[in-house]
Amino acid sequence: MNPRLQCLRNRLKAQDIEGMIISNPVNIKYLIGIEAEGILLLTRKENIYITDSRYIEMVQSTLTITDEIIVDDIKDITEEDYQSFFSFCENVGFEEEYVTYSKYKEYMHRYRINNFVETENIVEKQRIIKDEEEIENIRKACEITDNCFKHLLDFIKIGMTEKEVAHEIQRYFDEQGADGLAFDSIVASGVNSSKPHAVPTDKIIQDGDIITIDFGCKYNGYCSDMTRTIFVGYVKEEIREVYNLVLKNQKQTLEEMYDGANTKILFKMVDNDFKIHKYELPHALGHGVGLDVHEEPAIGPRKEVLLKENMVVTDEPGIYIPEKFGVRIEDTVLITKSGCESLTKSDKGYIVI
Amino acid sequence: MNPRLQCLRNRLKAQDIEGMIISNPVNIKYLIGIEAEGILLLTRKENIYITDSRYIEMVQSTLTITDEIIVDDIKDITEEDYQSFFSFCENVGFEEEYVTYSKYKEYMHRYRINNFVETENIVEKQRIIKDEEEIENIRKACEITDNCFKHLLDFIKIGMTEKEVAHEIQRYFDEQGADGLAFDSIVASGVNSSKPHAVPTDKIIQDGDIITIDFGCKYNGYCSDMTRTIFVGYVKEEIREVYNLVLKNQKQTLEEMYDGANTKILFKMVDNDFKIHKYELPHALGHGVGLDVHEEPAIGPRKEVLLKENMVVTDEPGIYIPEKFGVRIEDTVLITKSGCESLTKSDKGYIVI
Repeated sequence: MNPRLQCLRNRLKAQDIEGMIISNPVNIKYLIGIEAEGILLLTRKENIYITDSRYIEMVQSTLTITDEIIVDDIKDITEEDYQSFFSFCENVGFEEEYVTYSKYKEYMHRYRINNFVETENIVEKQRIIKDEEEIENIRKACEITDNCFKHLLDFIKIGMTEKEVAHEIQRYFDEQGADGLAFDSIVASGVNSSKPHAVPTDKIIQDGDIITIDFGCKYNGYCSDMTRTIFVGYVKEEIREVYNLVLKNQKQTLEEMYDGANTKILFKMVDNDFKIHKYELPHALGHGVGLDVHEEPAIGPRKEVLLKENMVVTDEPGIYIPEKFGVRIEDTVLITKSGCESLTKSDKGYIVI
Repeated sequence: MNPRLQCLRNRLKAQDIEGMIISNPVNIKYLIGIEAEGILLLTRKENIYITDSRYIEMVQSTLTITDEIIVDDIKDITEEDYQSFFSFCENVGFEEEYVTYSKYKEYMHRYRINNFVETENIVEKQRIIKDEEEIENIRKACEITDNCFKHLLDFIKIGMTEKEVAHEIQRYFDEQGADGLAFDSIVASGVNSSKPHAVPTDKIIQDGDIITIDFGCKYNGYCSDMTRTIFVGYVKEEIREVYNLVLKNQKQTLEEMYDGANTKILFKMVDNDFKIHKYELPHALGHGVGLDVHEEPAIGPRKEVLLKENMVVTDEPGIYIPEKFGVRIEDTVLITKSGCESLTKSDKGYIVI
């Protein structure tokens, strides 16, 4: 059987869950490599993927016999079929953080499920540890992102708008064979950089501007995520203290990221250092990266997770001075046995264009 | 009180629902004009919007006293506050098609709700009939879309890729002051046009290609949606029968769209005419357009809705010949008392570039 499905089945078994309906398309892509509209059923004995005529041919040509997945066309499935899928299951799991209340009721009724149980992100938890192929895809996405940054340093000129820079990022990614953006790029210049979640505007880039660029692409479905804060013409003196503090903490965090490191402590170390200097870290220090640009684990003040070899996470401290400016520096990082490797490798010193 | 909220309150009252939690951001934007991360509570006596420090200032400066909305910062709300909001409500409604099962449980627990009831798209149903301001926004989005199409006819050249054309659409919309794309543009040339949901590829546009362009922008949050199928160099003879049949049905549907028309019959008329000619309509004939590009009502084979004055819907028949080509022609249409007005006005005859 497809090894990811086999692993999920083992995990379900360990929790005494006898069947599962998987409807989150990202989880389906992870488990069986299929991107289509459809639903994956793990019944007592079988793995069944139900899709429609638009995708049947593509799905059947992608899956192999060793996947052990039965593909059904939705139009051939009768009411009795639906009722029989889970008839030998004492309980059936579902994705409670993805499925709407209305779908939850629909599934229960259609499949005649008596005991429909929450699975607490069982697939998302499996996705936390990346295998070699996944790491290679993320590595490639990071490489394209580094190249894009280099290209932007030549491209960005005084007089351009933030939106023009954001468009160039998208154009470059497409040209370089990425699958597209991992998320809507942030290009925030001057005072706009003071908002952590700024959206590119028609603001014109001017001499003396600071520019925060937070961007990433997808490669074979896997994301990269990098932020650099650069300067136009010269670096304003008032910014230096903040920039140095953010950079110091970003680098220190890289030193502290290793197999076994505690995410809550990583966050606290940066937040404490910022507070000593009368600043604060108003968002998480990082998050997992994979098929989703934000996935488990969060590196924040609440949940405690121990980093493990082959997790991929971001390291992205930021300080934001309201009405003035902001600085954020971010890498996508692979956790290794002995430490970590930054997969995005662009320069983090002062870059003046 | 804000008239849209008042109307919703009246509708809830008619259904004996005494409170409601609104979490779908599009519904919140519709009801109170706010785009932020937050949640809107209609309690027995008050309208409460809960958001966080990032948005508080913007929200408070947008709302006026006549809106009658209390704005709360999430960090100031205690457990007791949550429990008191609905303490005088016999029942509380929620958006069962938006809220995940996990959120549903979280809300019930946090707000101590005993009787949490489904509201069957009550806000979405209110959104079906557009007011003057909404229509003006959609009209403006359609005008920008028409202008973009005119621009594309000059812009598209043999040797360009589909992706380049898609980028130009986005660039043009940004330049013209639209809020951005209403949805990912479809630019499907040659055989790619045979897939109704094609994604722009690196395929190069060639002499003799047919190109289906399905695109739209947002203006003040309101969407446009238009499709035109054009030709490069010349029109292949085999395409003419299909193009003529699609265009005839698109125009006939415009004749049949008026206050009182039955959506199921509209669909059937086109589907029957296609079947007479050995083709079929593999998707809905149309859908509502507003803050979402796809909203109620669907014009398809299943649900029967009577069109009403000031609904805005699409009219988009299409025929797709596998492995060969496809033709779709689509307008965004305003239903009037006596008939309808196409808000997208671009030429639908044979356009050869």
